[in-house]
Amino acid sequence: MKRKICCVLGHRANYSSIKSVLLAIKKNSDLTLQIILISSAILEKYGSIRKILKSDGLNVNLELPILLEGETPQTMAKTTGLGLIELSTAFSFLRPDIVIVVGDRFETMSTTLAAAYNNIIIAHTMGGELSGTIDESIRHAITKFAHIHFPANLDATRRIIKMGENPKFVFNMGCPRIDIVKEIMNKKKKFNLDYLNKEGVGDKINFNKNFIILSQHPVTTEYGDAFDQITVTLNAISSLDFQTIILWPNPDAGSDDIAKGIRRFRENNSLKKIRFIKNVPLETYIILMSKTKCLVGNSSSGIREGAYIGTPVVNIGSRQNNRARGKNVLDVKHNIKEISNAIKKQVKHGFYKSEMLYGDGNAGIKIARILNKIDVKVQKTNNY
Amino acid sequence: MKRKICCVLGHRANYSSIKSVLLAIKKNSDLTLQIILISSAILEKYGSIRKILKSDGLNVNLELPILLEGETPQTMAKTTGLGLIELSTAFSFLRPDIVIVVGDRFETMSTTLAAAYNNIIIAHTMGGELSGTIDESIRHAITKFAHIHFPANLDATRRIIKMGENPKFVFNMGCPRIDIVKEIMNKKKKFNLDYLNKEGVGDKINFNKNFIILSQHPVTTEYGDAFDQITVTLNAISSLDFQTIILWPNPDAGSDDIAKGIRRFRENNSLKKIRFIKNVPLETYIILMSKTKCLVGNSSSGIREGAYIGTPVVNIGSRQNNRARGKNVLDVKHNIKEISNAIKKQVKHGFYKSEMLYGDGNAGIKIARILNKIDVKVQKTNNY
Amino acid sequence: MKRKICCVLGHRANYSSIKSVLLAIKKNSDLTLQIILISSAILEKYGSIRKILKSDGLNVNLELPILLEGETPQTMAKTTGLGLIELSTAFSFLRPDIVIVVGDRFETMSTTLAAAYNNIIIAHTMGGELSGTIDESIRHAITKFAHIHFPANLDATRRIIKMGENPKFVFNMGCPRIDIVKEIMNKKKKFNLDYLNKEGVGDKINFNKNFIILSQHPVTTEYGDAFDQITVTLNAISSLDFQTIILWPNPDAGSDDIAKGIRRFRENNSLKKIRFIKNVPLETYIILMSKTKCLVGNSSSGIREGAYIGTPVVNIGSRQNNRARGKNVLDVKHNIKEISNAIKKQVKHGFYKSEMLYGDGNAGIKIARILNKIDVKVQKTNNY
Amino acid sequence: MKRKICCVLGHRANYSSIKSVLLAIKKNSDLTLQIILISSAILEKYGSIRKILKSDGLNVNLELPILLEGETPQTMAKTTGLGLIELSTAFSFLRPDIVIVVGDRFETMSTTLAAAYNNIIIAHTMGGELSGTIDESIRHAITKFAHIHFPANLDATRRIIKMGENPKFVFNMGCPRIDIVKEIMNKKKKFNLDYLNKEGVGDKINFNKNFIILSQHPVTTEYGDAFDQITVTLNAISSLDFQTIILWPNPDAGSDDIAKGIRRFRENNSLKKIRFIKNVPLETYIILMSKTKCLVGNSSSGIREGAYIGTPVVNIGSRQNNRARGKNVLDVKHNIKEISNAIKKQVKHGFYKSEMLYGDGNAGIKIARILNKIDVKVQKTNNY
Repeated sequence: MKRKICCVLGHRANYSSIKSVLLAIKKNSDLTLQIILISSAILEKYGSIRKILKSDGLNVNLELPILLEGETPQTMAKTTGLGLIELSTAFSFLRPDIVIVVGDRFETMSTTLAAAYNNIIIAHTMGGELSGTIDESIRHAITKFAHIHFPANLDATRRIIKMGENPKFVFNMGCPRIDIVKEIMNKKKKFNLDYLNKEGVGDKINFNKNFIILSQHPVTTEYGDAFDQITVTLNAISSLDFQTIILWPNPDAGSDDIAKGIRRFRENNSLKKIRFIKNVPLETYIILMSKTKCLVGNSSSGIREGAYIGTPVVNIGSRQNNRARGKNVLDVKHNIKEISNAIKKQVKHGFYKSEMLYGDGNAGIKIARILNKIDVKVQKTNNY
Repeated sequence: MKRKICCVLGHRANYSSIKSVLLAIKKNSDLTLQIILISSAILEKYGSIRKILKSDGLNVNLELPILLEGETPQTMAKTTGLGLIELSTAFSFLRPDIVIVVGDRFETMSTTLAAAYNNIIIAHTMGGELSGTIDESIRHAITKFAHIHFPANLDATRRIIKMGENPKFVFNMGCPRIDIVKEIMNKKKKFNLDYLNKEGVGDKINFNKNFIILSQHPVTTEYGDAFDQITVTLNAISSLDFQTIILWPNPDAGSDDIAKGIRRFRENNSLKKIRFIKNVPLETYIILMSKTKCLVGNSSSGIREGAYIGTPVVNIGSRQNNRARGKNVLDVKHNIKEISNAIKKQVKHGFYKSEMLYGDGNAGIKIARILNKIDVKVQKTNNY
Repeated sequence: MKRKICCVLGHRANYSSIKSVLLAIKKNSDLTLQIILISSAILEKYGSIRKILKSDGLNVNLELPILLEGETPQTMAKTTGLGLIELSTAFSFLRPDIVIVVGDRFETMSTTLAAAYNNIIIAHTMGGELSGTIDESIRHAITKFAHIHFPANLDATRRIIKMGENPKFVFNMGCPRIDIVKEIMNKKKKFNLDYLNKEGVGDKINFNKNFIILSQHPVTTEYGDAFDQITVTLNAISSLDFQTIILWPNPDAGSDDIAKGIRRFRENNSLKKIRFIKNVPLETYIILMSKTKCLVGNSSSGIREGAYIGTPVVNIGSRQNNRARGKNVLDVKHNIKEISNAIKKQVKHGFYKSEMLYGDGNAGIKIARILNKIDVKVQKTNNY
Repeated sequence: MKRKICCVLGHRANYSSIKSVLLAIKKNSDLTLQIILISSAILEKYGSIRKILKSDGLNVNLELPILLEGETPQTMAKTTGLGLIELSTAFSFLRPDIVIVVGDRFETMSTTLAAAYNNIIIAHTMGGELSGTIDESIRHAITKFAHIHFPANLDATRRIIKMGENPKFVFNMGCPRIDIVKEIMNKKKKFNLDYLNKEGVGDKINFNKNFIILSQHPVTTEYGDAFDQITVTLNAISSLDFQTIILWPNPDAGSDDIAKGIRRFRENNSLKKIRFIKNVPLETYIILMSKTKCLVGNSSSGIREGAYIGTPVVNIGSRQNNRARGKNVLDVKHNIKEISNAIKKQVKHGFYKSEMLYGDGNAGIKIARILNKIDVKVQKTNNY
């Protein structure tokens, strides 16, 4: 019997973090791949990934609607509870041998607990990292349930072992997102970004000239501050004179406030040279990162993919606190002056040298190989 | 405004682990105590604790039925999901400042996630211990969500800090159960156990003569083995000639199998001098521990309260693996010969000297004092 | 493509009400049968029907644990909510063309709403009857969602049409339980009831002598009265001198009180010639009904199967109010004297002549034939 | 003790249907009013009604997020299941004597079942009507659970009694929405609609000239057709030369398709003189109805309020099938020619004479009076 490896995806961003692993599992003739979509991964509004998966040759076994509307702490908690109920049922149908848990979003606890309580082996990617939000608690809690660990860098690897996990089951493979980045960067020259001028709303961007990107998400433990935070950033940006692409936030508690902040700013200020885009495919995003003069906000992509690509990044506030970072990142507070100065500095500096902090681009194949061969017991033993 | 401290109890055993803390909070005029009962704590079948709380002067704010029948991995997972949904609602009514999370039962994850996702400060008692079951993963995962830690012994304290928690918020207070044990032991002489001969079924026990106690629970990660395991133990006991009190197991996945094993054994063997009892009040239980010649099985009480009381214990199998233990415990495998020999050895040895491994009996007051004064932020910072 | 007919069973009693239909669907080569077990149908405690189904040649597609412990109004409501969530998922996997909804138990609303909201055709058996409990509201509400109706008698048929349903889709087929009764009655002579003396607890019954049966369930809208009600009945019975078989109640709100009432009575009274039995297979039950001197309590079987078999019945209280009944039924109040007099009268009278009130024993085949051929739209049109 | 009357509102439209009743209950010193908001009633996106309630002097006791994102049959079913779980908890806190259930939306089944299963008296407004969608099944099913009925017109009253309800508890009070309409119509002259030109998007409307209104909702049992249906209507409208206000649809299964249809049409056609508005307060809506040349679509308001106001209405498709209607309504199919002709006809005709089909404007006070005095048992008795 082939080993059945099940991956639960709750959000578009999950997919790019695990895509190369899924493709490698699919190619491995000893493994059977199962995919379940939950939460915002099935909503068109946030960019349904069903079609993207299909075009990559991946089948979806189940889709489970669990996301409560509202994007408040309450709805995050209840969505997770509902997900736990539904995934427990789903696992009883699909009977996977191993469940892959990706990252640290709130609904990821559903997958983790459903697998753990049903005595299914858990493999966790991207564990052990620091970030300074509730995601960090979630990430470490998943580590304490996971049987096999695929951290994305050395710091994270050491931290997982320090937390008592058996080193025998902790594998520093690099981040699977870098596999994708590597592949996309090879196509960089042929890629034309102009089609973005037909998506979203706002001014047209001339991609042959300087442009910056803004991607700012709410910090769930600072629920209530998101509106002010985005307003500060928008003020900083509008004080400069760059073409700017503004990306919409993830559906976390507080993202409504970010959206409201953007809308309010738009109404009260004549924003020039700005284009708003809801979702861009990963490919486009990486090309954007490889061409922008500066990525502004608090997206993890600036830290991770940024290190490999060399993108100049201005990272604002606490969301990426303590995440291992390369030379390409300037950290600033929620302060108009600090932000605008940092942007100017980065634009002046230009691109950085590539750093392999988060892997060499072969994580997927290596992880699939381990999932096939590894011998691990449901009953974890710790190593203190 | 007084600080509101909310405690969620999911099982009778939870209560004795936190009772002295709750009484101390209630006495503290700066604090408001809130109590929510969930899961088996509201079921008469497992010993409803509402009445016990009332007689201790404690009010219950809410009761939430969430326990699915079946005692399988599936029902544990779904109960936890349902609990997360319901407690999230409950916290929106009661708006506690701090939620106390006790121990490591499966439904405890409901409380932890409901509080964490709703940005409520979490205080965790009994964290950092090792036990060798899924409870251990649950316990450590809670640690990674908790803001304030009250481990019950030194080993646990060190482990919590090693896992990256800020030492400033880790307090080795000893186990609150020992507070109760201390109090009960003072009344030992006046306590008459004979009333137990009117509870439960089976032969009458002469408490002035030698008797042993059997308390064996299913190990959730060994789901499916519970029937065989209890059968081995019962064979070992019936090969000896002691009066025996058999206590029924907790409602975990597999407890039906334990119950079935006991029933089957009873039908096929003429059990002599054996009495079956469903639930005993903690007071009775401690007195039993202070008078029995040997406590057999895999209850954590043998390790913890046993160390303080000095009860001779035969601990079977993996359930208490790695829990810090005193000299009073003999560890054996699921093997008839090993078990019967160990019992004989313990009966011969008699009581051990008291060890303070799990505290000095003043944990409750000390914890309440900290809950009142401590200044802690919702956004955790780790210490790696 | 074959039509997929899905039947959701929530309780052992559901099965005997639909068994002959399921067997007929299975035999029909144009139909595909799907079976989902939910709620108490998967709990050993209430008599898991999985094995019975298997021995009848029927496969179970899914088992969904949804039953909350407690048997209170709260747990009935929440079980139904959880069932609605889970069955909605289950239907998205199994994609049935028609869902058969049996009867009127609380969790049956889950099945009905999950099918209705997901635009699946609903066929309802046993609709249109009166009974005088919340089951009646449930039954009529299901009628208003159902597209195809298979009432069990003429009264019910007329009532469904009066409620506005299109007569074209209302088929008086008789009760499928009678199909089973007919079959069992043919084997009556060979059947030996003595094996019951090895099941349950209490005195042995001599089945060659007079015996009566007690089967009393809680009335959910009289929640709180169940304890007193069963006590009255037990007093009536103990005032007589018959051998008595007492059957345990269904897991509805209040059944704990019935159980407690029985236990209390047992402790305080020296009950002679009484045997307690938890669950009897339908076959045994029908044979018991064909041999008992009197069936006492409030079970619907007295009214329905009783009419066909001719069993003398003493029906107590409101639970079967208004259900169409034959000459074999004596109705009494919760009154010791009334009950004992009625029992004496029935024992003296002996068996009644068979009445075809609830069908001729061929319902299953006729229903399967209709399910195969009928042309019906998801959008109901009423007929007022 | 005052009677506690609890009303659960799941959508903005619910409120205007019951507002006059709630205000009358609040004024009645023998009654205590409780209000729970669920589902889209708490989402800003669909127009949170919390603020509106507050400005009307009404307090909200609880808010329960239960709405799953997606607006598919699946999410409707699961939202209802979740609502049943949550409301059952909510009723255990608030312990209402009577629960008022308004209308027939999908989540209304949550309220109905939570009350029914918990033995709480249910009063139902707007029962007994026909409409030709799943709402109709929901409405009639609620009738079969309700103890007290407040139908809005004579037809509906007769139908409820025909369905077996006790005439003693069926009160034709007229529709409470008409109370509001009556009140608003008195202020008609002073009301200035120009502020709408600052809300929504599109062209400015000159309210002194002819304008029409489009309000078209998806039909849940025609899930999948909504996109085509709205496209037909938009083509009909754009073929004419009227100023048009387009209102966004309710969050039912299919409303995403309506929204998409509107967006697509907007992109591909140069729509002139059209303004899109998300939510208008009821007051504005009634004034719009009293000034528009024609209301187009399938909103129930055209039938109900329309009869009282005299608004010329073009009602498209099956959604309002069989609802009792006045002379002001022209019914047409989803056909461009039919729709445009009907609009032209209505614009030419102008306003109709007021009809009292749905009440005289005093429903609220009359209903509150009955809720105060009525004596009704939890155990319903039918009248067949």
